[in-house]
Amino acid sequence: MQTEFSPEFREDLHRLMRWRRDVRRFRTDPVDDAIVARGLDAFAMAPSVGLSEPWRVINVESAAARAAALSNFQTANAEALAAYREDGDCERAALYAGLKLSGMRDAPVQLAVFCNDATTKGANLGARSMPEMRAYSVACAISMMWLALRAEGVGLGWVSILDEQALATALEVPDSWKLIGYLCIGWPEDQTPRAELEELGWEPRIGLPEMERR
Amino acid sequence: MQTEFSPEFREDLHRLMRWRRDVRRFRTDPVDDAIVARGLDAFAMAPSVGLSEPWRVINVESAAARAAALSNFQTANAEALAAYREDGDCERAALYAGLKLSGMRDAPVQLAVFCNDATTKGANLGARSMPEMRAYSVACAISMMWLALRAEGVGLGWVSILDEQALATALEVPDSWKLIGYLCIGWPEDQTPRAELEELGWEPRIGLPEMERR
Repeated sequence: MQTEFSPEFREDLHRLMRWRRDVRRFRTDPVDDAIVARGLDAFAMAPSVGLSEPWRVINVESAAARAAALSNFQTANAEALAAYREDGDCERAALYAGLKLSGMRDAPVQLAVFCNDATTKGANLGARSMPEMRAYSVACAISMMWLALRAEGVGLGWVSILDEQALATALEVPDSWKLIGYLCIGWPEDQTPRAELEELGWEPRIGLPEMERR
Repeated sequence: MQTEFSPEFREDLHRLMRWRRDVRRFRTDPVDDAIVARGLDAFAMAPSVGLSEPWRVINVESAAARAAALSNFQTANAEALAAYREDGDCERAALYAGLKLSGMRDAPVQLAVFCNDATTKGANLGARSMPEMRAYSVACAISMMWLALRAEGVGLGWVSILDEQALATALEVPDSWKLIGYLCIGWPEDQTPRAELEELGWEPRIGLPEMERR
């Protein structure tokens, strides 16, 4: 198998990263199982500390599970809004109240992705000194799926405005599983060149990281 | 700008993920600054919770800083080996002792990547309920750089066998910066289709995640 990549591929990879969005506005029509499966293929190729492959994926399908997840988000979101109001930052609070922060009502596919911190796979290599590496491995796998799905035109939105513990309980997962992200997946309503948070004035994108030298 | 991607691009993206390795064996010849800069471009396009862009990058260049990082790794690695021995798992310990777990002696470019958990950027959006999301954002940005560099033939190795706190102190970074990864970057000695940990029998790759339904 060829191991080199063309300049055209690199340009397209850059364009892919450029058009990746955290999608919250989804059409409700279904996404083929085959596309979701190809997205999950990215997990099979993702890096993981010590080859621990600590990711655990729950397909949140039933009406009851989806209602529990949505209600969890709504509570956490209301608490966040209240906190901005308590800070006395009325402009921030008003802006926050107007943001659409999850596509949980519409996204046809919803995955709760956990990290199993109790896995013995990998025999703790690289995670003895930095146990958080397992969670970072799961974040890497999600990033790769994000790009793979976007290459098919499918959007992903990573919801983190959630009470992790309550969601884990509602989804009846083992105690050692830690929520990394609740992923909404579906066809985006539109393709936008900038993040909505940037567009609506929540926060600008700085872009290139400053690099200090030592 | 075109927002669609071709089937050929998707195949190449799959091939890119397939050939991404955690590289520990580097040639010592330099990597052009322009290539490193294009790798860092990935950070500018990476997702971050609330657009917090919490990544902070230290270019570890000086002999003194590199010696401190290498010595930090050597200590953590010796402690890990001692722990396998103390567990009485002689086969694991022997296998561990034979692994090359960092390319810190040879990699021409070395970046220490931190998460600034005290950033006010993003105004805490999405990180109130899950503060770890900032660290996950940094992990996502590193994944994207990893792919971008690999597309140019450049390898990246993520070292986590480190005492985070001691490294942060040695590199004189603010207290609120948490180490996410120490990245070795350079031309790989060879291209391999499987991870060395798999090849040498440390751990097999399971591949596709099992997915439970709720």
